[in-house]
Amino acid sequence: MNKADVLIDNGWVLTQNPAGTSYPVGFVAIAGDRIAAVGPAAEAGAWQAERRIDARGGLIMPGLVNAHTHAAMTCFRGLADDLPLMTWLNDHIFPAESRLKAEHVHLGTLLACAEMLLSGTTCFCDMYLFEDAVAEAAHAAGMRAVVGEVLYDFPSPNYGPIEDGFRYTEMLIDKWRDDPLMTIAVEPHSPYLCAPELLRKAAELAGSHAIPLVIHVSETVSEVETIRERYGHSPVQHLANLGVLAPNLLACHCVALDETDMDLLAASDVKVVHNPESNMKLASGIAPVPDLLARGICVALGTDGCASNNDLDMLGEMDTVAKLHKVATLDPTVVDAEAVLRMATIDGARALGLDDRIGSLEAGKQADLIVIDTRQPHLTPFYRPASHLVYAARGGDVTTTVVAGRILVENRRLTALDADDIMARMGELARTIGAQN
Amino acid sequence: MNKADVLIDNGWVLTQNPAGTSYPVGFVAIAGDRIAAVGPAAEAGAWQAERRIDARGGLIMPGLVNAHTHAAMTCFRGLADDLPLMTWLNDHIFPAESRLKAEHVHLGTLLACAEMLLSGTTCFCDMYLFEDAVAEAAHAAGMRAVVGEVLYDFPSPNYGPIEDGFRYTEMLIDKWRDDPLMTIAVEPHSPYLCAPELLRKAAELAGSHAIPLVIHVSETVSEVETIRERYGHSPVQHLANLGVLAPNLLACHCVALDETDMDLLAASDVKVVHNPESNMKLASGIAPVPDLLARGICVALGTDGCASNNDLDMLGEMDTVAKLHKVATLDPTVVDAEAVLRMATIDGARALGLDDRIGSLEAGKQADLIVIDTRQPHLTPFYRPASHLVYAARGGDVTTTVVAGRILVENRRLTALDADDIMARMGELARTIGAQN
Repeated sequence: MNKADVLIDNGWVLTQNPAGTSYPVGFVAIAGDRIAAVGPAAEAGAWQAERRIDARGGLIMPGLVNAHTHAAMTCFRGLADDLPLMTWLNDHIFPAESRLKAEHVHLGTLLACAEMLLSGTTCFCDMYLFEDAVAEAAHAAGMRAVVGEVLYDFPSPNYGPIEDGFRYTEMLIDKWRDDPLMTIAVEPHSPYLCAPELLRKAAELAGSHAIPLVIHVSETVSEVETIRERYGHSPVQHLANLGVLAPNLLACHCVALDETDMDLLAASDVKVVHNPESNMKLASGIAPVPDLLARGICVALGTDGCASNNDLDMLGEMDTVAKLHKVATLDPTVVDAEAVLRMATIDGARALGLDDRIGSLEAGKQADLIVIDTRQPHLTPFYRPASHLVYAARGGDVTTTVVAGRILVENRRLTALDADDIMARMGELARTIGAQN
Repeated sequence: MNKADVLIDNGWVLTQNPAGTSYPVGFVAIAGDRIAAVGPAAEAGAWQAERRIDARGGLIMPGLVNAHTHAAMTCFRGLADDLPLMTWLNDHIFPAESRLKAEHVHLGTLLACAEMLLSGTTCFCDMYLFEDAVAEAAHAAGMRAVVGEVLYDFPSPNYGPIEDGFRYTEMLIDKWRDDPLMTIAVEPHSPYLCAPELLRKAAELAGSHAIPLVIHVSETVSEVETIRERYGHSPVQHLANLGVLAPNLLACHCVALDETDMDLLAASDVKVVHNPESNMKLASGIAPVPDLLARGICVALGTDGCASNNDLDMLGEMDTVAKLHKVATLDPTVVDAEAVLRMATIDGARALGLDDRIGSLEAGKQADLIVIDTRQPHLTPFYRPASHLVYAARGGDVTTTVVAGRILVENRRLTALDADDIMARMGELARTIGAQN
């Protein structure tokens, strides 16, 4: 008899392994922070575990990877919507952000972690201010995260001048080096807020530590025009000229790309993060995802921040991405349910350089996984798991969330975070933010 | 002291009345099937009720109106997705529908009612086969519904030749005349499946009974081309020529409209039902909703059937409609949260000719209302109710659903339907459907 700490069984196991293996009735055995075994129900008997979680006929699958967000922007959820971009930014978001302190970012991230865990996200990639507070909050929540301080040419409310931004990033790299769940990234904001020298230096730093380089690229047509005026090239071509395109580059948004841009991204194995709901709400445009996928580019999925979404529900985002590209191309066959599932799991992991550890249910990988309750009217009947996950399931259908073997959500309730306390504290902060808005 | 049967209090009351009144802490008193009073917390003390429901700081609002669906298509949820339209229809949906019996439609509708009630929909407008079974199921569920048998030129699996389709519709009108929750409509499928004579006769029948006339119009560009080839005009202009455009006409989809079409719809006060998620998933196109709203046309919201959505979650649909038109027009100010809320409540009621009875919380109106739990991480903090309802809330956030004064969902559980039994029976039916697919 093999020993495990946790056995999750009696569910349809969607492994997302390279062969795309599914077990209609299967199990996952967890030992420590790792998956000890995955297989059909018939093999579950070989495992003895301290704890058993009955998936009750639901789905057992890898935890979702939110590959681009600004977690602490939960503070601004619903503060201002439906406004012209510059009004929204200049009159609402920037003033509110200018008053943010590290403790607010910590609280906002805790709230984001609560929301993400409850809706099946086990790993997120963050870009914001006071990222040490983000890492601390993710650590307290038990979540896996890729975090990096946003870098730009002007002084930061956190670190001040850009030289100190690099020092701060190196501090993060040093501080979190041995943490099993935290990855530090180097995160220049964008080609339009970062001078060539900043971008080169950021790429060098990321390269020297073999960590991700995260950047916003070509989010809007007007951004592309700005960069063309300034440098004579598109943002992607500008980054190519600077030697920044590389497999560790995570290019977020990539809405306004031309054919040359896409060829360049493919040639350098750059990873793209698609944020459909934010791009829709801000009227940024529709990223050419079918074209990116056709080139073999790894496309991950993100929610972006709560101010422009307004939630962190990856299952909702999965529904949107599948539908959006069908209507954008007038082709109902593009971005099918299976492609979306990969974007939200194994390709998200690959984009973050973590696919050797997470993104699929395979023996030896980290035990980051979720259980979805399919015995509900809106998930009945049950023909194909991928269809339900993409087109009908929502965050609230997640019953169990496990990160590195720790059960962080059980029976739809957080085990390690006090949601009531977090919500109460956020309510207080929001009264201040709302009054100043 | 005034007497009521039910008092719902301690919530933010969004009345959706003509003045757009909200009570940040308010109450609704229900007597029999009607709203007896709505007001601020300070006035709640004047009411004594048999039962009190504590909204716990959540939102109290009118029940959502799903203005276009094919409820029984829950049977086919997830059966086939991501296929070319004709493959999907001819190889999957039509063969499965050809084997449907009234009892399957009854079961599929019961499941749909369970899903809709749990996600805050209190009234739906249906078009399908065996609509007496739909009405019976809605009646059993306690839901408000507008139902009508689909009419077309070819023989129906239900009624046979079209003459019998009109007889069947008249039978429905007669049978359900005195039911307080049921409205029968006359429902010719579309200009492309209905000859001019059928359309004229349907309009006459609807007009003579002063009931809604429901039809699919201009769902795709190819449909518009077909009608142009056949009649020399767009579908809307064709309907105008036939004298069918009228305030009781509910034109579903309206994706492919030109300026003349929109002017004609506005001039005749035709009501439009927008089904964004289905139009996206089937790659039909994007209805010109901002243009319709600018013309003062009443636009309601629908999910369409589960085979092309794949859920009946109006709160999810509200999120989609708000975002879709922003990216379609590249204008983040169009179709704002308040406009979406009206589409899903009072304008849905108006589209169905029921706005004297439902769609807003006003004394004397039917007590169709819902409570939404906002004390959850994904709905925290709380700046503006409209923002949360449209951009962050989902069906699972509904805790209480009341139709005509009957509490049909309480603490997220159905009170009048046995969901486990319905799901088990649907599971059995789906095994047969899946095996034949």
